[in-house]
Amino acid sequence: MKRNVLIIGAGGVAQVVAHKCAQNNDVLGDIHIASRTLEKCDAIIQSIREKGSMKTEGVLESHQVNARDSAAVAELIRNTGSQIVINVGSPFVNMSVLEACIETGAAYMDTAIHEEEDKICETPPWYSNYEWKRRDRCAEKGVTAILGIGFDPGVVNAYARLAIDNWMDQVKSIDIVDINAGSHGHYFATNFDPEINFREFTGRVYSWQNGQWQENKMFEIGKEWDLPVVGKQKAYMTGHDEVHSLAVNYPTADVRFWMGFGDHYINVFTVLKNLGLLSEQPVKTAEGLEVVPLKVVKAVLPDPASLAPRYTGKTCIGDLVKGEKDGKEVEVFIYNVADHKEAYEEVGSQGISYTAGVPPVAAAMLIANGTWDTGRMANVEELDPKPFLDLLDRIGLPTRVRDEKGDRPWNEAV
Amino acid sequence: MKRNVLIIGAGGVAQVVAHKCAQNNDVLGDIHIASRTLEKCDAIIQSIREKGSMKTEGVLESHQVNARDSAAVAELIRNTGSQIVINVGSPFVNMSVLEACIETGAAYMDTAIHEEEDKICETPPWYSNYEWKRRDRCAEKGVTAILGIGFDPGVVNAYARLAIDNWMDQVKSIDIVDINAGSHGHYFATNFDPEINFREFTGRVYSWQNGQWQENKMFEIGKEWDLPVVGKQKAYMTGHDEVHSLAVNYPTADVRFWMGFGDHYINVFTVLKNLGLLSEQPVKTAEGLEVVPLKVVKAVLPDPASLAPRYTGKTCIGDLVKGEKDGKEVEVFIYNVADHKEAYEEVGSQGISYTAGVPPVAAAMLIANGTWDTGRMANVEELDPKPFLDLLDRIGLPTRVRDEKGDRPWNEAV
Repeated sequence: MKRNVLIIGAGGVAQVVAHKCAQNNDVLGDIHIASRTLEKCDAIIQSIREKGSMKTEGVLESHQVNARDSAAVAELIRNTGSQIVINVGSPFVNMSVLEACIETGAAYMDTAIHEEEDKICETPPWYSNYEWKRRDRCAEKGVTAILGIGFDPGVVNAYARLAIDNWMDQVKSIDIVDINAGSHGHYFATNFDPEINFREFTGRVYSWQNGQWQENKMFEIGKEWDLPVVGKQKAYMTGHDEVHSLAVNYPTADVRFWMGFGDHYINVFTVLKNLGLLSEQPVKTAEGLEVVPLKVVKAVLPDPASLAPRYTGKTCIGDLVKGEKDGKEVEVFIYNVADHKEAYEEVGSQGISYTAGVPPVAAAMLIANGTWDTGRMANVEELDPKPFLDLLDRIGLPTRVRDEKGDRPWNEAV
Repeated sequence: MKRNVLIIGAGGVAQVVAHKCAQNNDVLGDIHIASRTLEKCDAIIQSIREKGSMKTEGVLESHQVNARDSAAVAELIRNTGSQIVINVGSPFVNMSVLEACIETGAAYMDTAIHEEEDKICETPPWYSNYEWKRRDRCAEKGVTAILGIGFDPGVVNAYARLAIDNWMDQVKSIDIVDINAGSHGHYFATNFDPEINFREFTGRVYSWQNGQWQENKMFEIGKEWDLPVVGKQKAYMTGHDEVHSLAVNYPTADVRFWMGFGDHYINVFTVLKNLGLLSEQPVKTAEGLEVVPLKVVKAVLPDPASLAPRYTGKTCIGDLVKGEKDGKEVEVFIYNVADHKEAYEEVGSQGISYTAGVPPVAAAMLIANGTWDTGRMANVEELDPKPFLDLLDRIGLPTRVRDEKGDRPWNEAV
């Protein structure tokens, strides 16, 4: 049983996390929001006040913190009495925040793999480079740490576990498909921090196939998918966090991640990449100024948080899991559909932020009531998926299943 | 009669200018090369030495100068005893170098309109914003100043004058067409300073039609041309310096400039422009660094000077001039074809730099022998074209004419 949440970060996902925590503060207790820029925290608090999102009267406070400074984060955890930390800051701060949790005993969550600014696409499995090196210390100290608990990674890991546990004796493949069929109305924009977004696509594409890591280039392997609600959509094999834990936990399955891209996105990306404008390595201008090109691209693109008011359309993210049951081949597609406009009306964010921000709050509630407060480090597929999916049904991200028997809510199918 | 040349700038065009001056130093006298970066001047001098380009023994020296500092340039003109200044530095320094010439009495030449860094595409006619404001002072002081004496502007202005003088009673239209059918082998590169190159295309496209300035957008008006040697090529109406003097000198003619672009160039340009990466106005990164996006694009693109060794193919630049002679409609296409590889073998530069760098040396030779040493400011169409084209025939840029009587050297046609 834990209470009081410290949210690290004040971007689009943090906005959703904060709103959802507020909506459930009877369970979660005090809410603290901390980031490098105090004004961004205050803006989130103001939007919570405006929407009247606090379920009961309670603490809702902003703090300035340098999240790369473990000692400062630990001090903030102690000073605020926070027992649960939801880290939705930049992936560059993950390990310093995790260290603060290990030091203070607070539960830790993040939604993306740790990254170092000057490295792109490290050796697979990615989690072994930073996160899993701290697994033993979490266990020794009884620290609950849930890695990658956004939608993907996160909910899709729980989908895989549910599918395998309920419908299969043996899993053969897990294909995670992420389609955003929404429209933001700009010439070009990324749905979250461009710096992080592009880093996903500039490295090698790792997939786990035939019991080994396979390397491809971005946009090298494409496939058309026919999905519920969003229909036929082209998606490309993409490197993604969850492949790197699912492959370790289900080594006999092929594990692939597919992300939907329109031709226009690919064209803009290709031009920027080929010109070297997505590089994380500094270049020097004729005037001698050292600049990281990717940071300039980020500066000229629309702020992802600004997209929300005009965003329309839906996302569909799910797992196609194939395997065997009683000697027969089975397959199931487990998925969620989210709506950009509905997300904006509820919490002031677009659908991509919404799908990433709601799951860690569900996890926080499961830590608060003890269900997921395991006292160890875990990827999401290592935790019981049912209470998690139950809670997501109730707080805004309902799960559905499509298989040979039709398309229906997941709990009617299991 | 004037002698001793000071070259301002040490880029690709300066390399050609210096080589061509060296090849004609019996006429031109001492050669001095000055730029912000002394090493770049020294590299040019070394390449002249390696190719043995000096016609006779003589002075060939490098100097460091800040060309935005008129007094420093004037001092350099005096110290070196230079009577002819060929300014092929950045267009941002044109007026400070011209002022130094007015002060010292040296003849002045440039190859592009003056620009201010924070302004793109000023009011037409462009020459009236900076250059022509100094026309009276040049005349008072007897200073010879030849504006825009590269290929385009420059040789194409002389082509227009030749066509009108020789084949027409009345000119109706001047269409200047610039096609580079060469290949540099890179994903993308600009043929001269990207900062200046892109500035040409981000502003309004001014043309002079029906006796008034017409405004269009870049790539709004395209047309396929069928030209000698390079064949059928798509070109787009583009803003360009020479339109702004030819329109004033031949106000009854329609004056348009067309530049050839492949679909790939247009795609890359469109992506960069729409994203705001071609902006000359600074943006601020998330870390608070102020950066001009265009300068970062320049930093990631290949150095135009580096393109030369791999460049193959040809350029075709010319004027299609239409008018009336003895009540009958006449038209003539006057043009030059240059070869990238031949240019590199002769002077170590690609064809675009070659076509821009040879004409000011021809003009310098005409100033040295008195022919063009007019003691006033002039655009090229205001000077006798014949001695200029004669000289160009001999030093590397032969002129041809295509009309109803066929395709032949210009001096067989006049």
